[in-house]
Amino acid sequence: MAVPIILIVALVAGILSIAMAMYFRYLVLKEDPGNERMQEVAGYIEEGAKRYLKVQYKILGIFVVVLAVAMLFLPSPLDDSDTYTRLFSDALNWEQMLAYIIGAVGSMFAGWLGMYVGVKANTRAAQGCTVSTKKGFDIAFFGGAVMGLAVVGVALIGVSILYWIVPDPMIVLGFSFGASSVALFMKCGGGIFTKTADVGADLVGKAEYNLPEDDPRNPATIADNVGDNVGDIAGMGSDLFDSYVASIIAAMMLAATLPMFVDLVLDFDAYARFVYTIFPIVLCGVGLLASLLGIWYIKWKGSDEPGKALNTGTYVATILFAGLAALLTLVMVIGLTGEEATMLWKLCICAVIGLLAGIILGLTSDYFTRDDKKPTRKVAEAAQEGHAVVILSGISYGLLSVAPPTIGIVVAMVFAYLLGGVFGIAMAAVGMLAIVGTIVSNDAYGPIVDNARAIAEQGDLGDDIIRTADRLDSAGNTAKAITKGFAIGAANLTVFALLFSFTTEANDIKPFTIEAIDLLNINVLIGAFIGVVIPALFSALLILAVQRNAAKMVDEIRRQFETNPKILTGEEPADFGKTIDIATKGSLRELIIPSIISITIPVAVGIVFGVAALAAFLTGAILSGFVFAIFMSNSGGSFDNAKKWIEDGNLGGKGTEVHKASITGDTVGDPFKDTAGPSINTLLVVMSLTASIFLGFLMLFGNGAGLLTF
Amino acid sequence: MAVPIILIVALVAGILSIAMAMYFRYLVLKEDPGNERMQEVAGYIEEGAKRYLKVQYKILGIFVVVLAVAMLFLPSPLDDSDTYTRLFSDALNWEQMLAYIIGAVGSMFAGWLGMYVGVKANTRAAQGCTVSTKKGFDIAFFGGAVMGLAVVGVALIGVSILYWIVPDPMIVLGFSFGASSVALFMKCGGGIFTKTADVGADLVGKAEYNLPEDDPRNPATIADNVGDNVGDIAGMGSDLFDSYVASIIAAMMLAATLPMFVDLVLDFDAYARFVYTIFPIVLCGVGLLASLLGIWYIKWKGSDEPGKALNTGTYVATILFAGLAALLTLVMVIGLTGEEATMLWKLCICAVIGLLAGIILGLTSDYFTRDDKKPTRKVAEAAQEGHAVVILSGISYGLLSVAPPTIGIVVAMVFAYLLGGVFGIAMAAVGMLAIVGTIVSNDAYGPIVDNARAIAEQGDLGDDIIRTADRLDSAGNTAKAITKGFAIGAANLTVFALLFSFTTEANDIKPFTIEAIDLLNINVLIGAFIGVVIPALFSALLILAVQRNAAKMVDEIRRQFETNPKILTGEEPADFGKTIDIATKGSLRELIIPSIISITIPVAVGIVFGVAALAAFLTGAILSGFVFAIFMSNSGGSFDNAKKWIEDGNLGGKGTEVHKASITGDTVGDPFKDTAGPSINTLLVVMSLTASIFLGFLMLFGNGAGLLTF
Repeated sequence: MAVPIILIVALVAGILSIAMAMYFRYLVLKEDPGNERMQEVAGYIEEGAKRYLKVQYKILGIFVVVLAVAMLFLPSPLDDSDTYTRLFSDALNWEQMLAYIIGAVGSMFAGWLGMYVGVKANTRAAQGCTVSTKKGFDIAFFGGAVMGLAVVGVALIGVSILYWIVPDPMIVLGFSFGASSVALFMKCGGGIFTKTADVGADLVGKAEYNLPEDDPRNPATIADNVGDNVGDIAGMGSDLFDSYVASIIAAMMLAATLPMFVDLVLDFDAYARFVYTIFPIVLCGVGLLASLLGIWYIKWKGSDEPGKALNTGTYVATILFAGLAALLTLVMVIGLTGEEATMLWKLCICAVIGLLAGIILGLTSDYFTRDDKKPTRKVAEAAQEGHAVVILSGISYGLLSVAPPTIGIVVAMVFAYLLGGVFGIAMAAVGMLAIVGTIVSNDAYGPIVDNARAIAEQGDLGDDIIRTADRLDSAGNTAKAITKGFAIGAANLTVFALLFSFTTEANDIKPFTIEAIDLLNINVLIGAFIGVVIPALFSALLILAVQRNAAKMVDEIRRQFETNPKILTGEEPADFGKTIDIATKGSLRELIIPSIISITIPVAVGIVFGVAALAAFLTGAILSGFVFAIFMSNSGGSFDNAKKWIEDGNLGGKGTEVHKASITGDTVGDPFKDTAGPSINTLLVVMSLTASIFLGFLMLFGNGAGLLTF
Repeated sequence: MAVPIILIVALVAGILSIAMAMYFRYLVLKEDPGNERMQEVAGYIEEGAKRYLKVQYKILGIFVVVLAVAMLFLPSPLDDSDTYTRLFSDALNWEQMLAYIIGAVGSMFAGWLGMYVGVKANTRAAQGCTVSTKKGFDIAFFGGAVMGLAVVGVALIGVSILYWIVPDPMIVLGFSFGASSVALFMKCGGGIFTKTADVGADLVGKAEYNLPEDDPRNPATIADNVGDNVGDIAGMGSDLFDSYVASIIAAMMLAATLPMFVDLVLDFDAYARFVYTIFPIVLCGVGLLASLLGIWYIKWKGSDEPGKALNTGTYVATILFAGLAALLTLVMVIGLTGEEATMLWKLCICAVIGLLAGIILGLTSDYFTRDDKKPTRKVAEAAQEGHAVVILSGISYGLLSVAPPTIGIVVAMVFAYLLGGVFGIAMAAVGMLAIVGTIVSNDAYGPIVDNARAIAEQGDLGDDIIRTADRLDSAGNTAKAITKGFAIGAANLTVFALLFSFTTEANDIKPFTIEAIDLLNINVLIGAFIGVVIPALFSALLILAVQRNAAKMVDEIRRQFETNPKILTGEEPADFGKTIDIATKGSLRELIIPSIISITIPVAVGIVFGVAALAAFLTGAILSGFVFAIFMSNSGGSFDNAKKWIEDGNLGGKGTEVHKASITGDTVGDPFKDTAGPSINTLLVVMSLTASIFLGFLMLFGNGAGLLTF
């Protein structure tokens, strides 16, 4: 059979990716880590990040074990019970559970590797800036690429080996659920950590004691830098790991049950179905190759314009992906009938459409958050009229910014659906995420240069070097806006695909069938109602968590300044460990309620109102989650850049009332864009996967119709 | 036939209501309007309000005529064309159009009457405070009751006479659409007007020139007072007029097509169906009687505790409604079979459940916005940590506050559905709005005492009198929080009912049928997606409108102070006309895009994606609209009361940094709670009715399946 050989493409790409990550790690580590003071600061950051990861992984371990045990005893339709049978899957509970654990451990490993290199790269990038912009850029870029390559490599190796051993999509579902559990903790926890430190440092250090950004006397400075790593490197990495795997599994599950779509031709034979099932994996393999070549292109070409270099990498990867995907399809149609081959070509086009849509979404986010475009300019100008007006302005443009990506997603969905039905939409999600290696690399570059700038400042490298680091940092911010829009769009399409695969899975259980998620059915309507409310509730809980923790941080910073006046004079170092502890413990404690919500509410809705209502619940949550995620990310980004634009000397510049108002905007935007907004993606994926995993359990209640049947 | 006689109950209640309104008007007008200065200020307010209404009604007239002409030429399924036939309706286009115009004119008349008395009552209430708290309360309460009674009276007289003449629910639909068109303009326009003036006055007068609230030297003071009348009296009145009529028509349309529900018994005869059809109208009649008695009870009993008096009126009306509804049902079951009678009793219980749910929703809003409860107390405390933290806190609690009313609505829906299917849910909406006379009266009391306080200040009545007026004002604020939660809940249930009636109407057109609003259908999913985004977009446009207008207002106030320094010294009066003009023209100009959106987007969705997608669009908009409406109203209310609590001397009191931060919160909350939040209700009703009115037109596109059929 030609197929397993083709599957090697994914495996090889994954292994290449890890090899390249190791090579980049070597390139980073061999660089000069700078002077003693820089190494000291970097050491604090590294130690803080490691301490956080250690505590986080310990709790995560307990969570994973508990869920794994639960999965073992779940009356899953996987176990071929007498009542229900499943057409496509004969995987066993323990197999799925093992895959779950492997997914969780894989995601943790990728996160650990990325962060380990990230905290080594920052001081080296700062030192590199003393040589040239290019040198600094290279080191930071290589450091970020380690994260990107590790994430995608581990994910692809995991998925392809697992499927090779047990060719059953339900196994890959377990792997995906494992990755999601980790992502939920890493993203929410990291988001709370980073903003606790950031807001705390700003409120006391900057506002009360007039210390500049990144001043070493501020006890929360190191925690703030640690936060960039745990939130923006490890958190974002695990988030995209999660979406990536979820998009693959959603497409695989749809492919496995392909004959069930009324919208598609019904006479695929077993071989064709197998080809469609592994197509998403292999396509991601060539996507990863495209990413590798894109990253290599940046390395080879180099650039004195960091922002342009990052974008060039993305465009190169996109074009290569389209070419390689066509080549792959050309090979994979061998052995298929004409009709089946046409279908595969259509699916390939869906993937390319998805990727193009992702880039358009990224550019939209970029437009709404760039300081040289109208929205952010207006937000900055609103700061002239005080704190309240800047807030109203940022919130309004954030809400407005939901419209263009909605149009983008809708158009992509329409085209993908026309070509391949709901499976086409799932393939668009896969395509959007195919070059995620590039996306994560660009994203992880951001916090490294952010940290590098801080280390340059604390290591007294002088104004010239700091300005160079600033240029690198600003390129990171632009890249980040694009990747964020991309990530939200990809997660959105992915959860749509998961929704379709969930209903397909439900319909696959005989004798049960959902048939329709009919909003005229009152259970379904109530499900949708509750779903729409969840992202609002979830955002509120995360923002309140940041606020509560930041208040504790503020108290601690004040306490340190008051009990030891020598900290302020710079004679004695601040107690960084204490502030890092507060951020660590606080963020983990505040995780409890959101993580319970994400697992229990979908299950509760399924138990009470039934499986169709649960599908509507997911739909409602996906749609309103999209609105909240885009709104919060873009308004937060706009606030941030409006502030920076004013700090560049516009509208009076630093220290003016206008600047103060813009800081208020930024502080409001911080938990929007770095905690609540991006965590919604993960929430949606976790809830969708929970629904799929617990489906068999839900069958116990009124045969899937729920306890409350009218 | 016993039925027309029973319909007299509604007509008589309506006429009694208008008579009582006229009597209260007399009671208000015969009171002492106070000293010359007070009369002067009241005269300015009256003139400004009238000027606004004049311009508003002129534009509104054009809008109504254009839509009326369009309705005349719409290829409505009403016209018994060859292709489609309708089971229950044989109303003609011109009849529906006439009803539309009558609805619009009726709503305008009620708004005019209420506002006319409102602007007379304010100065008299202020003067009344010099006699006693009770005297001041009575005058303001009577003034507010005129609005409440006029709104409900006109609505009920209109609906019952129209249905008497042409017993066809499609006629009442026209009436409802007329009322909605007016509400859209009055609510959005009024909301923009009032916050333009309020924010403008605060930003320059208070912040830059340190003038106290309501200072006559501030050129925007009068505009601010005018805004209270046009936004909170006329706007809120037309909003509830709109919901009230819409809830009746939704229930009537469902009743008219009753045999089509699979959930209900199928063998109702024509007489029974007629009884169910008029039941909502008559029930509103007894609800109005209950309101009249409640209002009379407050008048008779009197109270030195204004807040308690208002709530007592609500509770009395609620209890009376339950009793009278039972009595009514006892009469109306005459002539029905046992099964039919049981159904009517169940519907009666649904109405009572609805009313109870409304009161619970009101109390929830009250909890989240009261300064002696945890959420608002936390928001106030957050002000100690600066502008940004108070904003984050208010937004978080606002988002959290969506959860309890969701549970309330869901529980009410479940019970109502168990008793009477979707018709039961429609009856719950009717019940929730049955005592709307009381609700509007309590609500209109608020701006009158707010104005009275301003007039007492400007008329130099002394600190004691101002304190008395303050007490009245604070009772008004509490009442307002309750009525707002109530109004949102009622609108929510009403638009659900409209959604059901829309799909029922669509299914009533043969040979077309929606069958299901199936989220697995891609058109439907896209419809829901667009629907969920609309409330966010709409809110953004309204908030930006306020901001743009407020900026113009700020410029004008600065210009007046700079060109004529004698204004600041009090030697010459400010040019109030100019600021009122800016608020008037600005609010009407900014209305254009939101009103176009509310009509064209539903029609566009229907044309492109089909009628089922349009139903999903409405569902999505209803659900996310609920989230945004509750969030914005409650966070706005909480910001406002947190500020007031600090102004009462807590956490340092006036003039401190804490106070300034709380003012920032209040200014952000202002357009949330008084412009965007409450306008969403009206948007939802208008979109739902637009869908129903344009249904015949949408049949032209792919037979109702839309242009984009997959």
